[in-house]
Amino acid sequence: MLIDISSAVSFLKSHDNFTILTHAHPDGDTLGSGFGLCLALRALGKKANVVNNEELPPKFRYLDIEPQEFEEQTVVAVDIADVSLMGNDIRAKYETKVDLSIDHHGSNRLFAGLNYVDSSAAAAAQIIFEVVEQLGVEITPQMADCLYTGISTDTGCFRYANVTPATLRTAARLMELGANASEINVRMFETKTRTYAALERLALDGMQFFYDGKCALITITRAMFAESGSDENECDGIAAISRQIEGVLVGVTMRERRDGTYKASVRTHDPVDASAICSRLGGGGHPNAAGCQLPGTREEATKLLIDTIGEYL
Amino acid sequence: MLIDISSAVSFLKSHDNFTILTHAHPDGDTLGSGFGLCLALRALGKKANVVNNEELPPKFRYLDIEPQEFEEQTVVAVDIADVSLMGNDIRAKYETKVDLSIDHHGSNRLFAGLNYVDSSAAAAAQIIFEVVEQLGVEITPQMADCLYTGISTDTGCFRYANVTPATLRTAARLMELGANASEINVRMFETKTRTYAALERLALDGMQFFYDGKCALITITRAMFAESGSDENECDGIAAISRQIEGVLVGVTMRERRDGTYKASVRTHDPVDASAICSRLGGGGHPNAAGCQLPGTREEATKLLIDTIGEYL
Repeated sequence: MLIDISSAVSFLKSHDNFTILTHAHPDGDTLGSGFGLCLALRALGKKANVVNNEELPPKFRYLDIEPQEFEEQTVVAVDIADVSLMGNDIRAKYETKVDLSIDHHGSNRLFAGLNYVDSSAAAAAQIIFEVVEQLGVEITPQMADCLYTGISTDTGCFRYANVTPATLRTAARLMELGANASEINVRMFETKTRTYAALERLALDGMQFFYDGKCALITITRAMFAESGSDENECDGIAAISRQIEGVLVGVTMRERRDGTYKASVRTHDPVDASAICSRLGGGGHPNAAGCQLPGTREEATKLLIDTIGEYL
Repeated sequence: MLIDISSAVSFLKSHDNFTILTHAHPDGDTLGSGFGLCLALRALGKKANVVNNEELPPKFRYLDIEPQEFEEQTVVAVDIADVSLMGNDIRAKYETKVDLSIDHHGSNRLFAGLNYVDSSAAAAAQIIFEVVEQLGVEITPQMADCLYTGISTDTGCFRYANVTPATLRTAARLMELGANASEINVRMFETKTRTYAALERLALDGMQFFYDGKCALITITRAMFAESGSDENECDGIAAISRQIEGVLVGVTMRERRDGTYKASVRTHDPVDASAICSRLGGGGHPNAAGCQLPGTREEATKLLIDTIGEYL
């Protein structure tokens, strides 16, 4: 069932012992939303934990908080558009047990009992900020760091088309409430590990163009991880690179998984719809940033993806 | 003489036939401020032109406006910290003739008759927004594009330590007034020409580290411009790269000029003061982003710069 923000707030107020779920391959928005909401619920005297499907990537560990001991009664999902994005462990346990989902993906499949979805929000954390304000919680600097992280990472630091005046004003308010915006920005956007820098160079070396330069493809193989010393956790930045080349409307990054199949990140400029492309292939996301899993070998995956993109150009 | 904003506004109201000067190697802030102020003065029924020392870089041409015919009576400088930054043609004509300077550089040398300097502003365009509001001018989408461009470019799209809540709120207001934020961001931050991408790879190939990795140096030679097909106008993005490597406190880019000498862009993380380093070498700028000219050959320039940086590490 779709609900509005005041119903979501009432639900949170009238429940306790929360497990908050984040999505697999956690990013700044799902983590910032999860930990921000968790801290706010605790500030109301409730028990709450964030449960992640896998270990936090090192760059996000500053968001982490100590778990509490309690018997779980209420399950909330943040920034999760569909159960398929939960990650296997969380999905196995919680697929049919989510009481409330708070999300900003237009493609949200309403898998929870109650679903509050605001696709006008640039980040789930922008929604969580409103929720926390309506809960009457005083936002601490730690909560502000969480929510700022969510907003800044999901907007490429206020760069993408999903930014609205409300996004910028929420960020301004979070700075006033003590968010260490500049430190977070340096950590998220101005820091490349040496291993990432090495991976980036390998990725750029192999960039391919299709459809008169309208589509650019970067492929990251396990061998490139080995050569650079980098890994999956460092790939987010690379997904943005191919779309940046002048004339490119669709930038694609294919990343080899441990089992030899590929995961694709698709970034587009308007009017090309990344979400439509990825939905065709069983994935989903936003109009300008989406993803999907691809079957088969590198050659098969590339052909399937590039052919599909061709239909949208 | 230092003045406050209301004196600056009074001055603009009571004068006419403006020439607005921008600094050499014009960036988004000096151009956005200049054209934004020019449009606002024209909206008041005054005559005003922007005068640049050199042709606009292609990426900024969307800001350009048609010049008017009139006899110049009043000279205003925007985003110019010192006459040495005017560029030779403008300096020769206007060095001692600037009536009003509006700037946000703490290092401003107060070269004009009247100087309104607010170093708390992330961009000169943030100040111009306040000035235009106090002039009582209704901000058009075209003016909003100019001012948004100034603010976004001088903050790395809201990423740098100079951003304050006021910066974000000004940007939010400019979006509401019609600034095409997302298009401007794509143009400024998400677009690499193929020639720039080629230059970037050459630059990264030659990156050197000093002082246990605390200082990274990129050197761009004329030969690299020739090989990549790129030029000076495309170097801004590269200046940010070296500071991004993990552990680097001072990122330096040296760029070879036509005469074989080098210009340095110095970017730092706190607590290292880029402005102090560059001031020692006859340049200046902001605490985390500054620049200077270097005498001598590449080897001499490198030694001078790296030795000077060593004193600040």
